[in-house]
Amino acid sequence: MHEIPFGEVLEKLRGLNAHRVLIQTPEGLKREAQELADFLEENGIEAIISGDINYGACDPADSEAKRLGCDALIHLGHSYMQLHLEVPTIFVPAFAKVDVVPALEKNLEEIRKLGKRIVLVTTAQHIHGLERAKEFLEKNGFEVLIGRGDSRVSWPGQVLGCNFSAAKVDADGVLFIGAGYFHPIGVAMAVKKPTLAINPYSGDAIWMDTEAERLVRKRWAQIAKAMDAQRFGVITSTKKGQLRLAEAKRVVKLLREYGKYARLLTMNHISYQALEGFDFDAYVVVACPRVPIDDYENWRKPVLTPREVEILLGLREDYEFDEILGAERREDEPIGISLRH
Amino acid sequence: MHEIPFGEVLEKLRGLNAHRVLIQTPEGLKREAQELADFLEENGIEAIISGDINYGACDPADSEAKRLGCDALIHLGHSYMQLHLEVPTIFVPAFAKVDVVPALEKNLEEIRKLGKRIVLVTTAQHIHGLERAKEFLEKNGFEVLIGRGDSRVSWPGQVLGCNFSAAKVDADGVLFIGAGYFHPIGVAMAVKKPTLAINPYSGDAIWMDTEAERLVRKRWAQIAKAMDAQRFGVITSTKKGQLRLAEAKRVVKLLREYGKYARLLTMNHISYQALEGFDFDAYVVVACPRVPIDDYENWRKPVLTPREVEILLGLREDYEFDEILGAERREDEPIGISLRH
Repeated sequence: MHEIPFGEVLEKLRGLNAHRVLIQTPEGLKREAQELADFLEENGIEAIISGDINYGACDPADSEAKRLGCDALIHLGHSYMQLHLEVPTIFVPAFAKVDVVPALEKNLEEIRKLGKRIVLVTTAQHIHGLERAKEFLEKNGFEVLIGRGDSRVSWPGQVLGCNFSAAKVDADGVLFIGAGYFHPIGVAMAVKKPTLAINPYSGDAIWMDTEAERLVRKRWAQIAKAMDAQRFGVITSTKKGQLRLAEAKRVVKLLREYGKYARLLTMNHISYQALEGFDFDAYVVVACPRVPIDDYENWRKPVLTPREVEILLGLREDYEFDEILGAERREDEPIGISLRH
Repeated sequence: MHEIPFGEVLEKLRGLNAHRVLIQTPEGLKREAQELADFLEENGIEAIISGDINYGACDPADSEAKRLGCDALIHLGHSYMQLHLEVPTIFVPAFAKVDVVPALEKNLEEIRKLGKRIVLVTTAQHIHGLERAKEFLEKNGFEVLIGRGDSRVSWPGQVLGCNFSAAKVDADGVLFIGAGYFHPIGVAMAVKKPTLAINPYSGDAIWMDTEAERLVRKRWAQIAKAMDAQRFGVITSTKKGQLRLAEAKRVVKLLREYGKYARLLTMNHISYQALEGFDFDAYVVVACPRVPIDDYENWRKPVLTPREVEILLGLREDYEFDEILGAERREDEPIGISLRH
């Protein structure tokens, strides 16, 4: 389904005079990672594959690459995120081989329910289809906006599981193109506007507003469950793009000001099982916002986001999604592989 | 059960002029880690607790401490291992509050079956009782030897799950003092001499030879299962004390010389679930030897140690435990906390 440009990667590595490289891959590109490793070794470059589960560009294996004596890291399937990287890193996005227009065509009547002025967002896999989608929709009478997004993302219109800055544009509604629930639910929760998700593979269209409302109700229930908690573990990840230390300290300080016991914890991959044995009544995850939201049913203790702590303490009334926001974004990444030092 | 010398830790931190510290703890000392964090903060030192599961001194969180801006790492429950540490690290062993002599007294007749000349080994928790055990046994007519061990261990007589160098002494049999199965089974497999394990808590004595034989038979069955494998993933951990890169490369080279496909993988915590999706017929773990031996029943594919690969390829006939050996050991650690830069 995805084509990795082996030749271009090799060229970049030769430009770096790299002799040993670590390859990092998301779940869906493991076979491709193996093929790339084979190809590179046929061309005289030693290749090691990271078997660790990779959660995104926020989770680069650059420190591991350095520790393994690698000259470079190849990060498959995600676009560049602004982080301090310890070795030169080649970001190789994996663009889906699917035309987004037929699914839009099929669902034109649903899309019209969003209003006339719509903002178009998608994930990295479909970013190369965004201009075509815009043209198609404009031909059909829409005013189509594509938000620039902040420095966590690489391209206009791109959203991450933790960042919907590209959707924050003055429009009647949001049209998300892509598969899966998490991204468009995040959009609906973050933007609080009518949000329609169109899956370019299946052609399905789903209104996310009801889903988002249901999720928000579940989050209010988590907050209620944490009401009596006295002892809070405030967890940040040591993954570079999730290490929100200042925010975690702010939450610790806030909880202590309100008479709670709070302690800062760090974990590499945040796992509720590994927390058994600590003496906390509730946890706050100040790392990937997906952790408390996707996974909370598995935790034995209530688990909140920083903004939910503010609600708990009476400092905020409206529910807000815990985004990780960046600074202003200066320039687009190339649509293709990019090398970052 | 364990007493952490809070005052001494604080003194060492003050000596370092440390303002922020990361505390790393094994499963059994999580409450103590929280109490230590509270104590340090009462004394003006900011404390963060690592929630990651810690597998031993081979798995220090020094890189994480550095990334978090900590001036020092406190590593609870294990003794120092010779590694390149990125921040000053305070090793705080946790000595068990149990007298080892009553259990020896109760089992004198069993101990006599080992022979007259015995070598005494234990884990870090009981190392402070070793001299008392030696005196008691000598009074009862034994010639008691305590091996120096190599540079992976801190004290004479100490064994790790991956290192039994202290047991390799010319004696009739080995007496292991401590709880659990893994360490004494490792001793019996590594030393191939009569091995009696005495549990100082329960007073039980168990002959490990039969257990070790049974385990070795299971390992032969794993080797047989891997006989038809053509594609091998050779895995090393990125944990500093388990990153056996040269050994992993030797295994890759060896497998390739024998016509197999082999590919070097690295993982932080080695997990069979995370490997699903790769295209390998079998795995070789060149990291903690406990992984393939304790855990192999959970893997969908055969999983071998490097020495088992040699058997598979017909290069070795006898079964040998995969120890991680060190260099010559120059001096003992103090019995107590030790600071390493």
